[in-house]
Amino acid sequence: MVTTDLSISIDGFAAGPRQSAEKPFGDGKVDALIRWMFEDGEASAAELAGIGGAGSYIMGRNMFGPDRGSFDLSWTGWWGDTPPYGAPVFVLSHHERESFELAGGTSFTFVNGIRPAFDLAVAAAQAAGSDRVAIAGGATTVNQFLAAGLIDELRLHISPVVLGSGERLFDRVPSVDLEQVSSRATSLVTHQVYRVLR
Amino acid sequence: MVTTDLSISIDGFAAGPRQSAEKPFGDGKVDALIRWMFEDGEASAAELAGIGGAGSYIMGRNMFGPDRGSFDLSWTGWWGDTPPYGAPVFVLSHHERESFELAGGTSFTFVNGIRPAFDLAVAAAQAAGSDRVAIAGGATTVNQFLAAGLIDELRLHISPVVLGSGERLFDRVPSVDLEQVSSRATSLVTHQVYRVLR
Repeated sequence: MVTTDLSISIDGFAAGPRQSAEKPFGDGKVDALIRWMFEDGEASAAELAGIGGAGSYIMGRNMFGPDRGSFDLSWTGWWGDTPPYGAPVFVLSHHERESFELAGGTSFTFVNGIRPAFDLAVAAAQAAGSDRVAIAGGATTVNQFLAAGLIDELRLHISPVVLGSGERLFDRVPSVDLEQVSSRATSLVTHQVYRVLR
Repeated sequence: MVTTDLSISIDGFAAGPRQSAEKPFGDGKVDALIRWMFEDGEASAAELAGIGGAGSYIMGRNMFGPDRGSFDLSWTGWWGDTPPYGAPVFVLSHHERESFELAGGTSFTFVNGIRPAFDLAVAAAQAAGSDRVAIAGGATTVNQFLAAGLIDELRLHISPVVLGSGERLFDRVPSVDLEQVSSRATSLVTHQVYRVLR
């Protein structure tokens, strides 16, 4: 099963415009997007836990690090010495870079193209005895996988804010039928789980 | 209080592209947008009832009727002889047309500009002893009122479908802080109520 967890505004943005090393979520009211993760931890404990636990992960180039045209080899991601993934992470990138491993079982492997990344992630999850691959983000990467029909379950964490601009989930994704699997709200966020129908 | 009820897809569309007299909601999987109104009536009875009951209504030109460049005076709206509004309805239009009244207390008055329509609707609601004006739609009209800061409560009925194109809520609306007032889901729809913060 391929899942994705994405925190979005009610107008569908997962990040604001002008993302940078200093502002990984870009400009605007972007703190409101992930406020639930910090202020709502107990009420949303199940959803927070569900973001982890996959057998492998796939993420876009910008989610791994700020794009400076090529890789700064001293950059090992936003997450410090012990990233929370604890599993193989496949980073989509046109730039070549050697794989490396950090503490806690997280490795980063750089792959050009969503299909090769998908195949490697499925194999890595299976090798770890897991049936779940998580598309970690950002929205542009999720949109590519949605458009390719490669996502089974969308877990959207919808925050009460209109961002107005930025990186939008579903941008240029063709029409898709969904089944609403569950819906649960706290005062800060609504957690929606949708199954993608084929 | 100014409210709006809008049925939208998870990607924020309230209608598909190419709306016409034959297809008022346009092309695409638009039946999925309002399926909850017909198949989920009992489970969503409170939300359905809440769409009505305002002291007056404002709607866009396209919600009143298909745009043929001017008014076809034999056209009295999509709703037959006894429209469900039972209150004054103000239709935004650049074309002039005399007001008229239908059975059940619904009248249609044609007004050029959102501010004049807003003032007339507030006065009409007050005259009827109501404190509520409803922006009936479509999304383009709701967006104009949102951008002007004239909506207090957003009631979104989110259906499990990705439409991919059409008329989008929040299109060109600047950033807005919301408070999540309530959230309730049935198997077919999630009902979100947001208060607009100023």
